[in-house]
This record gives sequence, structure tokens and C-alpha cells, in this order.
Amino acid sequence: MSSAPRSDNRHRRRREDTRARLIAAACDYLASDVGTAASVQQLAARADVGVGTLYGHFADKHALFDAAVASTLDDFGAAFDQVNADVADPALLFANGVRATLLLRTTHRGGSEILRRLGFEFLARDTALAPRAAAGLEAARASGRLDLPGDLDTALACTAGAILGCLHLLASDPSVDPDATASSCALGLLRMFGLDDDEARDLSSRPLATVRPGTSSTGPDTRSQH
Amino acid sequence: MSSAPRSDNRHRRRREDTRARLIAAACDYLASDVGTAASVQQLAARADVGVGTLYGHFADKHALFDAAVASTLDDFGAAFDQVNADVADPALLFANGVRATLLLRTTHRGGSEILRRLGFEFLARDTALAPRAAAGLEAARASGRLDLPGDLDTALACTAGAILGCLHLLASDPSVDPDATASSCALGLLRMFGLDDDEARDLSSRPLATVRPGTSSTGPDTRSQH
Repeated sequence: MSSAPRSDNRHRRRREDTRARLIAAACDYLASDVGTAASVQQLAARADVGVGTLYGHFADKHALFDAAVASTLDDFGAAFDQVNADVADPALLFANGVRATLLLRTTHRGGSEILRRLGFEFLARDTALAPRAAAGLEAARASGRLDLPGDLDTALACTAGAILGCLHLLASDPSVDPDATASSCALGLLRMFGLDDDEARDLSSRPLATVRPGTSSTGPDTRSQH
Repeated sequence: MSSAPRSDNRHRRRREDTRARLIAAACDYLASDVGTAASVQQLAARADVGVGTLYGHFADKHALFDAAVASTLDDFGAAFDQVNADVADPALLFANGVRATLLLRTTHRGGSEILRRLGFEFLARDTALAPRAAAGLEAARASGRLDLPGDLDTALACTAGAILGCLHLLASDPSVDPDATASSCALGLLRMFGLDDDEARDLSSRPLATVRPGTSSTGPDTRSQH
């Protein structure tokens, strides 16, 4: 009599596991030169499921890629919140967010590569990173803590651009130091947003809470340890 | 006896004209969603020449697209120099360069769209814009006029990113004011590079020399006037 619910749970767990593997496969391709050119067959093979199973979860490969991007950005948003869990100062929140986004390149290489390749498109489609950045900048302006050089959209465009530019710098030259680059980027943006040099240097070099490995497909790539 | 050189000249002029039309066709595609997916047949048809003629000028379509990108960036570099012909202050040179690059969206829409779609790739392949920006920032730092928040590469990445971010903002919302956005972007970057707010506001709002229409394929799009 009690076996039906247990079987339901097992079925649900298996379904969730399959979905996660499909999203992980899509993330792998999005982080590579293949990108969205990967076929349904390639995606299913990489997730080790049949093509029919893929269609049981997603209407088509575009829906799967959309879910993969959303999952990546959600993870980044969660990391962003994690680093700032105990921070009240809107200027420090902003500096930490900039640095954390750049440092995810070290701990979450695949997801960071997806963000870099997505480029400014994430500003339009993102429901995780961009709204957090906008809300943070707006709160910092409203409190008088930051002084934006133009309207909110321009400030967001400059912030997103500086971060993407530094992600490209890190991707193009492995000898570039991620910590130094992340702190310089945050320092520059804090100065752009009206802080004096001393305070901007202080806020952009404070110890940063370590981002815990993600639990989803965009977490640390552990396959090389297998 | 004098007809041979005249005929040579005519031949050379015709060859240059054909090459310019091929580059203009490639620029048209690069500024559109088709991009480098345009076929040799499409490129030749758009330039109103035969496919054999195209191959008489370029080894393949990639060589033609490379020439189109180089031509676009060369034009932008020339516009950059034009705006700054009489400027000696490295900080004003920098501010004018930032504003001019953004304002080319108004006068050189196609070329500006190519730059936006090229994204950060232009930092790696560009022999016109990026070296000018790097030399300008380096001179400004050496003179003590600007104070970069990190090394030169990080400063360049933040500058390129802020400009590309604002180009995306202008492309995504036609109601955004290009002049205001260009001035805000320059103001923000001058503050990032150590100028105080008053001076940064002054330098980023000075009257700007008007960029003359380009003479090449990436100049103002006049086809709508035909």
C-alpha cells in the first residue's frame, strides 16, 4: 500500500536528474565554440538519454538552451546574494557584486564562459543578474551613497560592459590575475560612481566571502577529477 | 601614344570601384543579422558583380569580411583623429574619443552597428581603434593626467566595455538620446580614471568637432536618399 508514493518519488527524482543532465549538456555546448549550433542528437547523446526523452522535457533545443542560460544566471544571482548576505552598505554591495561576478570565472568556469559569450544579451533576457544590479544601483543612488554619471540604464550599461570587458581580458590571457583584475574593475566603477579614491580602494579590496561551489550544472567543473 | 596610361588609370579606377562595392556589400551584411553567413553569391549579387569578379579581388568571403571590418575600423580611427586634430590635453583627447565613437552611431550607422556586433573581438583584431585608445590612455597616464585604477589592459577593457554597453543601450531603445549617453559615458570613464567631478563634467560636455561624412563604404548610409 505504501509503495505507490515511494514509486512516485523515485519517478520524480529520476525525471529531475534527467532534466539536470540535459541542462548540463546544454551548458557544456554553450560554453564552447559549438554553442547553440549543437543538434538535438548531440545534446541527447551528451546527456546520455534518447532524443525522445529530450523532447519529453523540452519542446525543442532552443527551449533547452533557454533553460540552460536561465539556470546559469540564477546560479550567479545566488552566488551574488551569498557574497553579500551580511552587507548593508549599498556601495560595498555593488563592489562585492562586481568582484564576485568576475571571480566566478575561477570557481564556475563553464557558467562564466556562458556569461562572456552571451555578452550584453543577458541585460535583456536575464531575470537574475541584471535586475539585482539595477536594484542595487538604484538603492545606492537613492541613499546618496553612489552618484551615477547619467541615468540608471547608462550606469548599468557601463557596469555590464566593464565586467564583460574584464571577462574577455581574463579569457584571452591566462596569465592575467583574476583577483587583481576584479578589484581594479570594482575600484574603477566605484570611482565612476562618485566615491573618492581612498574609499573606493578600501571597498574594492575587502576580504570577500568565498562563493560555495554551485549545486547545479553550472557549478565547478569536476569532470576532470573523474 | 598617350592612350595607354589613360586606359591604365581607367582600369585601376574601375578595379578600385569594384573593390569598394564588394566591401560595401560585406559591410551591409555585417551590420545585419545575416552577418558572415552571407554567401559568396549573395555578396557578389549585392555588389552587382559576378562571383568570378569577387574571387579576382578576394581569396574567399572571409578575406572580404576581414577587409570590410578593417575598413570600418580604419574609418572610425580616422574620425577619432579628426575630432581630436587640435586637442593637446590627453584627458580631453580621451573624452572626445569616447564620445565620438558613440556618436558615430548617428552619422555612420552601418559601421557603428558592425562595431557593436563585433563586440570585444575588435580589441584583438583591430589595428585602428584599440591601438589609438591604448596609446592615448598610456600617454595620459605617463603625463599624470589620468590615473588608471589598474593596469593598461584593464583600463582598456573597461573603456571598450562601457562604450559597447552604451552602443547596445542605443541599439535597444531608439528613444535614448545619443548625445546625453555619450557625455555620461565619457563623464563616468573620466571619473573612473581619476578626474574630479567638475573637471570630468567640463571635459565630457565641450563642443565636439563634427565628424565629416566618411568617404568609404562605412560612411553615412545615403541609399535611402536615392
